[in-house]
Amino acid sequence: MAATLEDSTVTYEELADLEREFEEVETEILRRQVELTRPLYEKRAKVVAQIPNFWPLVLEQAPPEIDEFVQPTDAALLLSSLTSLSVSHFEIEGGSNDGSGDPRSVAIRLEFADNDYFEDRVIEKKFWYRRSLDGWSGLVSEPVEIRWKKDKDLTNGLLSLVKRVWDQEQQQAASSNGNAPATAAEKRKAAKGRELTPDEKQLKAKIEEVGLGGMSLFAWFGYRGPKVSAEENRRAIEKEKNDKKLRLAGKKPEVDKKDEEDEDDDEEWDELEIFPEGDTLAIAIAEDLWPNALKFFTQAQEQDALSDMDFESDEDAMEEGSDTEPPSKKVKS
Amino acid sequence: MAATLEDSTVTYEELADLEREFEEVETEILRRQVELTRPLYEKRAKVVAQIPNFWPLVLEQAPPEIDEFVQPTDAALLLSSLTSLSVSHFEIEGGSNDGSGDPRSVAIRLEFADNDYFEDRVIEKKFWYRRSLDGWSGLVSEPVEIRWKKDKDLTNGLLSLVKRVWDQEQQQAASSNGNAPATAAEKRKAAKGRELTPDEKQLKAKIEEVGLGGMSLFAWFGYRGPKVSAEENRRAIEKEKNDKKLRLAGKKPEVDKKDEEDEDDDEEWDELEIFPEGDTLAIAIAEDLWPNALKFFTQAQEQDALSDMDFESDEDAMEEGSDTEPPSKKVKS
Repeated sequence: MAATLEDSTVTYEELADLEREFEEVETEILRRQVELTRPLYEKRAKVVAQIPNFWPLVLEQAPPEIDEFVQPTDAALLLSSLTSLSVSHFEIEGGSNDGSGDPRSVAIRLEFADNDYFEDRVIEKKFWYRRSLDGWSGLVSEPVEIRWKKDKDLTNGLLSLVKRVWDQEQQQAASSNGNAPATAAEKRKAAKGRELTPDEKQLKAKIEEVGLGGMSLFAWFGYRGPKVSAEENRRAIEKEKNDKKLRLAGKKPEVDKKDEEDEDDDEEWDELEIFPEGDTLAIAIAEDLWPNALKFFTQAQEQDALSDMDFESDEDAMEEGSDTEPPSKKVKS
Repeated sequence: MAATLEDSTVTYEELADLEREFEEVETEILRRQVELTRPLYEKRAKVVAQIPNFWPLVLEQAPPEIDEFVQPTDAALLLSSLTSLSVSHFEIEGGSNDGSGDPRSVAIRLEFADNDYFEDRVIEKKFWYRRSLDGWSGLVSEPVEIRWKKDKDLTNGLLSLVKRVWDQEQQQAASSNGNAPATAAEKRKAAKGRELTPDEKQLKAKIEEVGLGGMSLFAWFGYRGPKVSAEENRRAIEKEKNDKKLRLAGKKPEVDKKDEEDEDDDEEWDELEIFPEGDTLAIAIAEDLWPNALKFFTQAQEQDALSDMDFESDEDAMEEGSDTEPPSKKVKS
């Protein structure tokens, strides 16, 4: 079918502006939703803390977008040791909901009982919703280290390596006194022109060697995403506002040629990423597992009840088992 | 894993109450969301009306939950004739947002240009969010007729047959002067005890004969869902409130024995349903296709641009083509 936008008086920019208006309203609604549901989530946390294995049972029923990342060893570890899971919208919490923080930024916090794999009792990963100057937007994060017990590192050293590379980058940026590349696009360009550091080389080689299929869920704590700083995010939001004003005044916004040329490099930052789908997983946890935890738990209880009903005829069991409706469709009271 | 609820002091009812509290807040948020986004949807409708083939292009990019129901003939018809698609939350519109209507009820309206298949210019289907006395909740609807041109009925008579059966039921209910079965559970029980009418028999036989795999998307207009009346919905909401009060006062709510016994019959109403997944499709249109239409359209434009770039090397094309991120993750401005 023909590209129909060209055949109309509507411009691409007009549609993009409209999309941004929707985005603004949706973000505002999310902000209110977080406020309105917070007391309920607190109440839920108190109730489910009294139920043994609540979160492991919820995870057992996790939707495919989460379940696909859970390897058998991860599952065993989570089932035996996960004591709590929680999601917070940290940029708008603790009295800081003054409109400046983004409600799409989320922190995901896991708590564990004593276990054979690592020393940590709490592992928390933060995701910042950012916008880059060349038009990308989404969740970025920082590698979080796990203190593995001897020979128990489920990521085979990848997680600590990615953390080391990250720390080196931060040091380098700090020591370059503001001369370091500032935007994600500049960083990609700079990275292209230089040799990898020894640790980066090692990381790249290791990623190629082990491959990422079948990688432990715990490698997720190494997800970084595009290198969009808080400063670049601020500038991108500013630029967008100005561009819109210019368009509304009938003027053409400045186009950053440099960024335009860089389009092909879009995926470059992926090379040193040990969990490329880290943002997708974070969204699935924050927007599905977390809000629907009670439904997943009830599902787990029902499945358990079913497997207790061995005495039933096969036919009955088949019929009940074939009820594959999503939890949101059917709510038994 | 063991059923852990039994090992705790938390009751199933407590969890169900908590879920309902979440549901109430979410419904309230949806109500506000509908209000806040309405002006934007109106603005969008005006803009996209100027773009030829906007909705057919959006449908081309529809997510799998919608696309799987679109047969090749449906696609050809939609691409050549669909001029408009819109979703309204009709129970809370037109000044009736006084808190009594449910924002989850939706009407989906399709507009068509002159075409070879049917006479209608507008086909609209309403879905009511209802709750039954035996604990089901979800979307119910009424069959909507389509005035097919000669030998052009894409549903092979199924749609008009299901409409006839529906009309007979309504007549019968009206003539029985309030003695007709009132609740979905009673209707199922009554249906079980009696012979099918000739039209019902014909409908059942026809469904069995043609099978529903590969059925036209237009059979969706025949979806009915469980037979939950507005009156039963009202009673169910009332009962839920009372039950909760009783529980909070430490008393045990009355259990409707009749309904409990009926549990096995849950899926009985499906027998005469020509589009069993009608509610799922409605939700996918209302909650994904409709709000994300601009993104799907932009995707269609980008794909079109890609197929124009035949001169590019195969390698480049492969790389760009492999960018399979969902539209919500990556927004190019």
